[in-house]
Amino acid sequence: MAAAPILARRIARSGVLPLCCRPPSWDRAPRQPPGLPLAPCRAFSNNKIQVELDESSGVAMMKFKSPPVNSLSLDFLTEFSISLEKLENDRACRGVIITSTIPKIFSSGLDIMEMCGKNVEHYGEFWRAVQEMWLRLYGSNMVTVAAVNGSSPAGGCLIALSCDYRIMAENPKFSIGLNEAQLGIVAPFWFKDTFVNVVGHRIAERSLQLGSLHPAPEALKLGLVDELVPEEKLLEKASAVMARWLALPDHARQLTKSMMRKAVLDHLVAHREEDIKNFINFISKESIQKSLRMYMEMLKKKKS
Amino acid sequence: MAAAPILARRIARSGVLPLCCRPPSWDRAPRQPPGLPLAPCRAFSNNKIQVELDESSGVAMMKFKSPPVNSLSLDFLTEFSISLEKLENDRACRGVIITSTIPKIFSSGLDIMEMCGKNVEHYGEFWRAVQEMWLRLYGSNMVTVAAVNGSSPAGGCLIALSCDYRIMAENPKFSIGLNEAQLGIVAPFWFKDTFVNVVGHRIAERSLQLGSLHPAPEALKLGLVDELVPEEKLLEKASAVMARWLALPDHARQLTKSMMRKAVLDHLVAHREEDIKNFINFISKESIQKSLRMYMEMLKKKKS
Amino acid sequence: MAAAPILARRIARSGVLPLCCRPPSWDRAPRQPPGLPLAPCRAFSNNKIQVELDESSGVAMMKFKSPPVNSLSLDFLTEFSISLEKLENDRACRGVIITSTIPKIFSSGLDIMEMCGKNVEHYGEFWRAVQEMWLRLYGSNMVTVAAVNGSSPAGGCLIALSCDYRIMAENPKFSIGLNEAQLGIVAPFWFKDTFVNVVGHRIAERSLQLGSLHPAPEALKLGLVDELVPEEKLLEKASAVMARWLALPDHARQLTKSMMRKAVLDHLVAHREEDIKNFINFISKESIQKSLRMYMEMLKKKKS
Repeated sequence: MAAAPILARRIARSGVLPLCCRPPSWDRAPRQPPGLPLAPCRAFSNNKIQVELDESSGVAMMKFKSPPVNSLSLDFLTEFSISLEKLENDRACRGVIITSTIPKIFSSGLDIMEMCGKNVEHYGEFWRAVQEMWLRLYGSNMVTVAAVNGSSPAGGCLIALSCDYRIMAENPKFSIGLNEAQLGIVAPFWFKDTFVNVVGHRIAERSLQLGSLHPAPEALKLGLVDELVPEEKLLEKASAVMARWLALPDHARQLTKSMMRKAVLDHLVAHREEDIKNFINFISKESIQKSLRMYMEMLKKKKS
Repeated sequence: MAAAPILARRIARSGVLPLCCRPPSWDRAPRQPPGLPLAPCRAFSNNKIQVELDESSGVAMMKFKSPPVNSLSLDFLTEFSISLEKLENDRACRGVIITSTIPKIFSSGLDIMEMCGKNVEHYGEFWRAVQEMWLRLYGSNMVTVAAVNGSSPAGGCLIALSCDYRIMAENPKFSIGLNEAQLGIVAPFWFKDTFVNVVGHRIAERSLQLGSLHPAPEALKLGLVDELVPEEKLLEKASAVMARWLALPDHARQLTKSMMRKAVLDHLVAHREEDIKNFINFISKESIQKSLRMYMEMLKKKKS
Repeated sequence: MAAAPILARRIARSGVLPLCCRPPSWDRAPRQPPGLPLAPCRAFSNNKIQVELDESSGVAMMKFKSPPVNSLSLDFLTEFSISLEKLENDRACRGVIITSTIPKIFSSGLDIMEMCGKNVEHYGEFWRAVQEMWLRLYGSNMVTVAAVNGSSPAGGCLIALSCDYRIMAENPKFSIGLNEAQLGIVAPFWFKDTFVNVVGHRIAERSLQLGSLHPAPEALKLGLVDELVPEEKLLEKASAVMARWLALPDHARQLTKSMMRKAVLDHLVAHREEDIKNFINFISKESIQKSLRMYMEMLKKKKS
């Protein structure tokens, strides 16, 4: 398997890197989160996500491994943000490939259990974690490549949309999209902004209103993903794409990325508390809770 | 004819619906015009427009029937806005299909007679009616599908652009576009904003500067319309598309639509009086009046 | 050769045109630079650029002729801005076709010599000249057609992007793009805005981050250029396109163009001094100077 060389070079060395070792480009790096102390980081793992950094290439492989469907629970989101932060702060890491170990699923999106029958404090904490994940991923200084090896609805789609490049397995059974409207809920404005930045206003308007899940070939046609490859070549291709992006000087690439994404990132940063309040109000409504319960019932029936 | 079942179910029942019958989703409905009393509404008609509501599907069929070319006169615009308002306030109506009874013409756009040789008051009243029509249609909570069964220049194109979905008869003799520049006049900023939201900045810039009228196949290629079907299948197709859009929960779809269109709607609302003044100033200029007279002469010669 | 009729009609008449001769449409012309006195202008030339105006068609042919690669030096930019201003103020001129006399090169972009090893005053003067050129070209009232008859990286690409229409020789060896990131530098926000207006956000984000130079066929596919023609037909085609654009009334076309480009032009006008300061700070950094020196070394090696 062509991706093997990368996976083989698992490295667990963990020298703590003093801040002064970071190359000059990082100092001016836009959106670099002010810092936790730099943690040792070559390979790490938790219940939800496994990360391996190939020191020679500077590329981390991040694999979602939270059965059954990589739901974005509060725990998952927290681990995801911590993993991104660790890599962001690791001078040896310049790019990350995000994929899944679960067959047929990249990520099923926000965990409905976190939005159903909980109290207001929980909803607030959960939504803050969703925001945090997106701010880190969409604003990352690293090159981010999504290797979408399964279906990727709602929040799963957002993760893919937030990367620099999206490669999807060319299986028409895998679909991707912001299908919130189908559940009776509404994608927040920053999901929408991220979507519009990728596919343009018209495609976003239609797809969001219909809550469309686009099969891989359609997703390619709409520009929702950048290319399709056979599933067994997905990681190999992701590594090749990553190498091409890493051929550019980090500093210029990072400033360019920041210039392109700043307006949309700033928009959420400026309205973060308001957005949390809106989410709490919306999700606490009995009509919405009922919609979500119905949706969960439907999912249960599908399974059995 | 496949559209027959829908057309056959013409209903003229007219129970007055008390406000409290409106489903909860309408209460929070964005852009719901504050209300005229709810009028009885199942089928209604005036000199310009005929409307029939199929109660079982919740879909209204709205047909322009103002010979010779469905010009958007002050009377037409007023009737159009009133019809939209009636449907918007009718709890039984969830979507509207807009089409024409005039062969080969969807709508020829703003009535030049209203802009030529009239006084300042008239220009102001006329322009306010154009704005009103667009604010109601572009901001409608209903699903709006344009079944473009003929040519659709200028204001006719705007009506199509303001719907959620555009289906056009696949006749290359039918064309559509914002061709104002050809008449020596300029599409106002909100025509432009609506256009950019559909086809993107580049296509809009070029098409507006050239005042292009795009034949149906080209309109499809540019994304100006969403699909082409043989003319005899147009209403059948429109009904099928409508059914797909109505499969979504109203509330989530409406909030999503509002999120996508709010910026552009708010822009006009915030500058409405200024926009009217600009129109009056522009249209009152002798050079513009001369252009319009020349254009009308040309049209007359074409006819004879 | 089909372009011959236009080139043959070289006119050097130079009647000084009083201001009152300008047609009314010019009076309200947006972005018309407040005025230098109207200079005699039918054909003029300098060391860098040759201009010929065909009085009968109202079309000027502007040819870059600064060997070896039409670098945008301070001198070149100054001559370019002056030439544009002369044409803009000449009532006989309604459109300009921009092309190159240098084989295989349209323009190689900003002259790196102007950005390397100079003092702060020089950097400031240079950057102001770059801004000036773009403000005049992107905001021109004339119809501007780029006949891209060779490669066109960075600032060369910006010139093409700033025109109303781009025709490129269909030679896959010719490439075009904003490749600044490859040099370790960052395209300023108004290069980015111009690019986004042409190709949309997604394509711009990817292309700018990778510093891509797109071969002509790819540039067409991305919408970066509007059409490809065999090199020997380039000027003929440019003249035909120009004639189509000039068929529209000037006044309506100019107001429409201004409406489409105003936001982006205003953005630079409002931040011009800040943008100059940013450029000076950035380009004065030793790390950036080193990148540029390395790039120049690489170019030298390529030549030998």
